[in-house]
Amino acid sequence: MIYLDNAATTAPCGEAIAAAREYCEKFFNPSALYRQGVETAEFIKEARAFITSLIAPAGYDCIFTSGGTEADNTAVFSFGARGNVVTTLGEHSAVYEAVRQIPSRGGEARFAKLNRDGSVDVDDLLALVDDKTSLVSIVHVNNETGAINDIARISALVKKKNPRAVFHSDGVQAFGKIPFTLPATVDLYSVSAHKIGGFKGTGALVKKKDIQVHPLLFGGMQENGQRSGTENVAGIAAFKAAAQVAFSNFGARVEGVKKAKAAFIAHLSDDIRVLSSTNSSPFILSVSLEGGRSEVIQHILEEDGIIVGTGSACSSRSKYSRILKECGYAPSVLEGVIRISFYDGDEQQAEFAALKLSAAAKRLKKFLR
Amino acid sequence: MIYLDNAATTAPCGEAIAAAREYCEKFFNPSALYRQGVETAEFIKEARAFITSLIAPAGYDCIFTSGGTEADNTAVFSFGARGNVVTTLGEHSAVYEAVRQIPSRGGEARFAKLNRDGSVDVDDLLALVDDKTSLVSIVHVNNETGAINDIARISALVKKKNPRAVFHSDGVQAFGKIPFTLPATVDLYSVSAHKIGGFKGTGALVKKKDIQVHPLLFGGMQENGQRSGTENVAGIAAFKAAAQVAFSNFGARVEGVKKAKAAFIAHLSDDIRVLSSTNSSPFILSVSLEGGRSEVIQHILEEDGIIVGTGSACSSRSKYSRILKECGYAPSVLEGVIRISFYDGDEQQAEFAALKLSAAAKRLKKFLR
Repeated sequence: MIYLDNAATTAPCGEAIAAAREYCEKFFNPSALYRQGVETAEFIKEARAFITSLIAPAGYDCIFTSGGTEADNTAVFSFGARGNVVTTLGEHSAVYEAVRQIPSRGGEARFAKLNRDGSVDVDDLLALVDDKTSLVSIVHVNNETGAINDIARISALVKKKNPRAVFHSDGVQAFGKIPFTLPATVDLYSVSAHKIGGFKGTGALVKKKDIQVHPLLFGGMQENGQRSGTENVAGIAAFKAAAQVAFSNFGARVEGVKKAKAAFIAHLSDDIRVLSSTNSSPFILSVSLEGGRSEVIQHILEEDGIIVGTGSACSSRSKYSRILKECGYAPSVLEGVIRISFYDGDEQQAEFAALKLSAAAKRLKKFLR
Repeated sequence: MIYLDNAATTAPCGEAIAAAREYCEKFFNPSALYRQGVETAEFIKEARAFITSLIAPAGYDCIFTSGGTEADNTAVFSFGARGNVVTTLGEHSAVYEAVRQIPSRGGEARFAKLNRDGSVDVDDLLALVDDKTSLVSIVHVNNETGAINDIARISALVKKKNPRAVFHSDGVQAFGKIPFTLPATVDLYSVSAHKIGGFKGTGALVKKKDIQVHPLLFGGMQENGQRSGTENVAGIAAFKAAAQVAFSNFGARVEGVKKAKAAFIAHLSDDIRVLSSTNSSPFILSVSLEGGRSEVIQHILEEDGIIVGTGSACSSRSKYSRILKECGYAPSVLEGVIRISFYDGDEQQAEFAALKLSAAAKRLKKFLR
């Protein structure tokens, strides 16, 4: 099997599985006051500091959540209930759909346009920010095209226009993939475990320490009262272990993925149109066979043991990709979109997959003509 | 180690660990459209039907959540924003604290008094229900005293008074422990995996199929749009496996636990006061050494390798147990509370623990006099 749908989810790495297994033995409730409980609480504290330290300077911490969606929703609903929320048409549905709820909660929702590559049109975005803006949320790496938004620059421009606006970024496709440290102008940043070799069901909202979120979940006051519910200790342990691996081999892994992506593109036939820009994330490549149908191409590749995505797995129920449509592509392009996403680069596999995709395109083209 | 804090959390069983391990291999995103994704989605569907079938007749399904707290919060916030919400002073904090948020969301919060054993005063409860009541939420088994509320009878009485009121019960301490099938008068029921040998981070809200909840999390429309976020597949697999074990050995396990509890009580010295009533859940026993201090007793037992709780792990940061206070106990009793909670009964361990507790009480009594 050649698995090229890593933006949807990655295989848990051995280290993550081992760490979760360890915390199946150390299964104690972190709220318990006996030694084992206290040690578990201590471990969570360490994991929190570790995850935060990977992308943030001093003055930040994080809230562990049930995943990227909960982290995004916590950010949006904490700061979006007054004034207006400014986001983009290129957000993952976890931000996009949450912001769409804002009007029913008393705020106004504003969506900035996209450039052709899926990055946000910064001028359009800035025009939407005013002194009533309570939250600005911009995805760091677009999960379909891989377009990278320069959130350091954008957040600085936003804060210049309205220093009181809270700035959030969904970093789910950037964490462990794009070298990055949060600048002081980014207040909140969402990350997810299962995109970097951890488990589904764990994520975190990295945030400035002095920012208090409005909890989505109330109860036993875990996570300093900001997210109640018994901590997913094994999931957090797996997250920490996976992040440790991801950040220790960061440079080499990114180089490997860059080579794999380049090899993939180099072996594509002319029938396949590359939608991702050259400066997009090395981990994501969006292509299209114009006039073809994503599912058909996907299934042909499946027969060769190659697994690729069709846009975001999280919105695969919609006919076309909402995001690529906003990039301005025609229905004939949208219908034939395939997303290839890497985690550990393997040039030979990438080459093989690209050749198979090109062969599939050739076969399909006959029917399309 | 003799672990007697199973109401806080249980050790994951071997079957749960094996199932999670299996879904680390089958790690695919259930929203993906290729075979492996579809099979994962199919598995979640099966797990949903299985968990539901254990406690509900046809006409019910469930939403997988990140745990009991999210299930409780989903119920409360879905139906509590208008009219009034009636609950009890004996709720777990996941319901209690959520209901306390209701006034800020436009509803009214009403709390029914408790009987001495921690069960709800049904007359007081019914007096609070009127034609403006949108939700009634009653814990099935009190997590501190083990008092069992007859929610079949109570829900019928509530529906008689207001047929439009939605009836929810937090069944976290009852699921897999108290033989029970949801009657038609119970609309929503919360369960948790890590109280029956599953993993922390997984739970479910069992509900009537025709009831649509208001999602807490928006995004990729997972769980039929009622709970977005990539499914915690390994956690769900572990939950299914643990529930399978819990329900296959149900009768024998309950008998074993009953014997262990009886053995424990039989070997307690007169210094120890039993707070739980004789008809409480076999799995929970609340006792007190009047004038003693919970943490001191807990630590003395720890030295003998015996782990017991001090009230609810989820509220161990408060000085006294909120719930036992509402039962009417004096501060001197509240200070010395210890919660013993069983999962698999072991009479000899229970006897040993009770003797050690009695010995600790004897030693402490000297200082207290």
